[in-house]
Amino acid sequence: MSDERKPVFLVIGAGAGIGGHAAARFAREGYHAVLARRSDEEGLQRLVAQIEDAGGSASGTLLNASDDGTIEELVERVEANIGPITCALYNLGAQIGNRTLDNTPHGAFELGWRLGCFGLFRLAHVLMPKMVARGQGTLLVTSATAAVRGNTGQHSHAAAMGGRRMLCQTLNAEFAPQGVHVAHVVVDGSVDAPDTLGKLLGDKFEAYKASKGEDGVIDPAALAETYWSLAQQPRNCWTHEIDVRPWTDVPWWNDNPIVAIDRD
Amino acid sequence: MSDERKPVFLVIGAGAGIGGHAAARFAREGYHAVLARRSDEEGLQRLVAQIEDAGGSASGTLLNASDDGTIEELVERVEANIGPITCALYNLGAQIGNRTLDNTPHGAFELGWRLGCFGLFRLAHVLMPKMVARGQGTLLVTSATAAVRGNTGQHSHAAAMGGRRMLCQTLNAEFAPQGVHVAHVVVDGSVDAPDTLGKLLGDKFEAYKASKGEDGVIDPAALAETYWSLAQQPRNCWTHEIDVRPWTDVPWWNDNPIVAIDRD
Amino acid sequence: MSDERKPVFLVIGAGAGIGGHAAARFAREGYHAVLARRSDEEGLQRLVAQIEDAGGSASGTLLNASDDGTIEELVERVEANIGPITCALYNLGAQIGNRTLDNTPHGAFELGWRLGCFGLFRLAHVLMPKMVARGQGTLLVTSATAAVRGNTGQHSHAAAMGGRRMLCQTLNAEFAPQGVHVAHVVVDGSVDAPDTLGKLLGDKFEAYKASKGEDGVIDPAALAETYWSLAQQPRNCWTHEIDVRPWTDVPWWNDNPIVAIDRD
Amino acid sequence: MSDERKPVFLVIGAGAGIGGHAAARFAREGYHAVLARRSDEEGLQRLVAQIEDAGGSASGTLLNASDDGTIEELVERVEANIGPITCALYNLGAQIGNRTLDNTPHGAFELGWRLGCFGLFRLAHVLMPKMVARGQGTLLVTSATAAVRGNTGQHSHAAAMGGRRMLCQTLNAEFAPQGVHVAHVVVDGSVDAPDTLGKLLGDKFEAYKASKGEDGVIDPAALAETYWSLAQQPRNCWTHEIDVRPWTDVPWWNDNPIVAIDRD
Repeated sequence: MSDERKPVFLVIGAGAGIGGHAAARFAREGYHAVLARRSDEEGLQRLVAQIEDAGGSASGTLLNASDDGTIEELVERVEANIGPITCALYNLGAQIGNRTLDNTPHGAFELGWRLGCFGLFRLAHVLMPKMVARGQGTLLVTSATAAVRGNTGQHSHAAAMGGRRMLCQTLNAEFAPQGVHVAHVVVDGSVDAPDTLGKLLGDKFEAYKASKGEDGVIDPAALAETYWSLAQQPRNCWTHEIDVRPWTDVPWWNDNPIVAIDRD
Repeated sequence: MSDERKPVFLVIGAGAGIGGHAAARFAREGYHAVLARRSDEEGLQRLVAQIEDAGGSASGTLLNASDDGTIEELVERVEANIGPITCALYNLGAQIGNRTLDNTPHGAFELGWRLGCFGLFRLAHVLMPKMVARGQGTLLVTSATAAVRGNTGQHSHAAAMGGRRMLCQTLNAEFAPQGVHVAHVVVDGSVDAPDTLGKLLGDKFEAYKASKGEDGVIDPAALAETYWSLAQQPRNCWTHEIDVRPWTDVPWWNDNPIVAIDRD
Repeated sequence: MSDERKPVFLVIGAGAGIGGHAAARFAREGYHAVLARRSDEEGLQRLVAQIEDAGGSASGTLLNASDDGTIEELVERVEANIGPITCALYNLGAQIGNRTLDNTPHGAFELGWRLGCFGLFRLAHVLMPKMVARGQGTLLVTSATAAVRGNTGQHSHAAAMGGRRMLCQTLNAEFAPQGVHVAHVVVDGSVDAPDTLGKLLGDKFEAYKASKGEDGVIDPAALAETYWSLAQQPRNCWTHEIDVRPWTDVPWWNDNPIVAIDRD
Repeated sequence: MSDERKPVFLVIGAGAGIGGHAAARFAREGYHAVLARRSDEEGLQRLVAQIEDAGGSASGTLLNASDDGTIEELVERVEANIGPITCALYNLGAQIGNRTLDNTPHGAFELGWRLGCFGLFRLAHVLMPKMVARGQGTLLVTSATAAVRGNTGQHSHAAAMGGRRMLCQTLNAEFAPQGVHVAHVVVDGSVDAPDTLGKLLGDKFEAYKASKGEDGVIDPAALAETYWSLAQQPRNCWTHEIDVRPWTDVPWWNDNPIVAIDRD
């Protein structure tokens, strides 16, 4: 199931969307992929099996990332038993839908931070020293529109993602000169992710995708290709931030054209 | 009409909206206001008369700011005949409404730049050395949403305003340490400006304002108050960038809430 | 000590710097100022006495803002016993100096978030419904350079402040249309604040200020003036974000000029 | 020298750095590369010969992009004689080194705009309708740090690049929904470009590169790889903005760590 001589790709937040496709993409290039997710052992093993059926190497583990010590234990275990983590993807979301402030309990706000920001800090805390010691490594971070602007109902999500983005810049400032590449990916559009968006929308998922038109939803396999490209950049030419969205989506900085004559 | 002992406030782009109200606000505090605008001598003299009727000091001049030498001549003339320009407001707009690329001729794009960006450079070129020699001065720059994000139909306007904003940062980098305050004001909402928005919308202006609801359009007198506050900041606490919009307007970085579950 | 008929200005984080000066500024205009800080009862009472000596109205309370329920209890108590909070200033910092990731324990990161981000959420949670019910109110938020960019050693601070900024945008999106003004103030320079920067630098504080040159450190009284101006803006012309720094400070987006020929 | 059945890659600004390497990268994948540059016919033909020696297809032309009609004529000629331009790269720089405002003549400021902003508008004006008619196409735009922040001595460059960035966002807003991909690449570091940085630094070029350390300067071949990846993104997952810099370079939003305790 694993191979000590393969480089390891670790993904925290490995559903059937971005995480699973990124794992498959790296496995296709000879990485051993370690997939970690919170629940659904069956779904997890299906992803592992798909990678192995395609000739790749992978293993999976369930993990509650918001619990103390879980991410830390996983990283230590992978490094000890499988091999050095060459590239890690922090792919945990913290989206809980649009909720007014009144409908955002303190616990929801804190959980958003635990998954959206603190978990990345904890991953970096345990993994960065190992990458620095090896003089190389890549930390990919899936992020969201909420990292660059707050919006109605996004109290928990935006606060968590805003923290995530500033943390990525801080990690980059400390670790890029030590040979570790940190890339913050602003996913500014809906992803065809059955385990998250799919579960949230339930019966309406297919109708939602259809409403977006042809190629109107990000294919996680396409995004995985962008992740792969980022991880291949030589250190003379590293990207820290990149955005992606479908062609038909309005970017976060735009809204509909308005009469906007604003000065005399 | 003027008084050599008063400090001078110069506004380039002095219609009945922001420019005229800013002139009145500074005149109320003892400045001699010099109002410059492209056309409508009658409207110009009305603004001057309003200021004088209120006990202030003002004078006006028509000027085609996009013509070579006009801004330069005006600054030299004011400095020679009236007094040192303590504070200047560059208030020329470059909005031509939403036009597709095909409907944006080369000449419109160039004129947008001449008014939106090059004119400010020319004003700074002639005025900054004088302010530096005096060890103080303030340059207020009215700007627009288009300075921080492009949008459909804004080819000319956004390119001009994006240049304006970067120019303001460059001016600030060179001149703040020499005692000159440069402030870039992002006006992110419609202004109750009869000479620009009013003329553009014509008969529909009142209906447009009504559609925005109570206090839904920026009162140029309120904005003039913000300009006055900026000009009063002591040099230990200078603002370089500030945004303003009505309470009911959606900021430029927001659009309507959407289902935005974007990761797994 | 208080006066039910006065509007109330509440400041969370009321040291002798920004918080104390803002309280004094609002008290000078007829507000009853409520000053809350974590420690130093004597210093707190000195600030209250200074305001009262100047003819103003103020009261103070010690409060550990990171403890559950403290901010909530304070807001309820002030509203019940003193009067409606017309304007609140969230002024708690979360700066712990520059620390490498290894020297940033999990607890420090979490405390940064509790003070820098969660406390503001908690304040908004209890206060916003009251302001909305009254159809008006102002929430001023002191923020920092770390809210707009991460930097070496700022893991805890930048993650907290990045969350703070995105939370402010989210609060604005929900509450501006309900009549409540939220303003995020990016303090991009050192403040002459004896209780924070002063205590951190100790004996070196005066030398540090001297090294910054004349007017090289933000005078908290000047910043309080800017806060006062923000709170006076009518709702047709609200600022959401503003930056301030001394004239001699390099803005966060600049560094020293370099040879920067970057393309062919 | 050309092949009508190959897709065409057009690069405006084809020196031996980014432009030449991008041309070679696309030619390697089967594109016919058209290289346009202002001067040095010999250097131009050397680039063409290198591509052909590697088995690729290319042609070159000298062109003064700031002259009216030149870009327009080139696009029409290429489309008529060689084939549809599938991907274009606007790679003209406008950097003139750091110059104070006094040392930035009006003509330098205008030329910066003509090369940095207006030329891209002209290219889009002639090319976009063709790409829209074909329902697809890619416009890559090399950009610079000056597009996202002004800095000392960058009056001309920053104003031009700030306009370029806002223009790219405007082009994206209009043309992405019509199937044309516009990508704005912020090159935030020095490039190993003999025809631009090399000529500017002359004898000091090698010493400069050495001073940056191992992999301390962007290899244009590496950047060309990123360009190639951008051009391969399917329309469900398009990047509009991406940054790149060497691992040892400080990003534009950072400077050196400072004592930055800024609030009480």
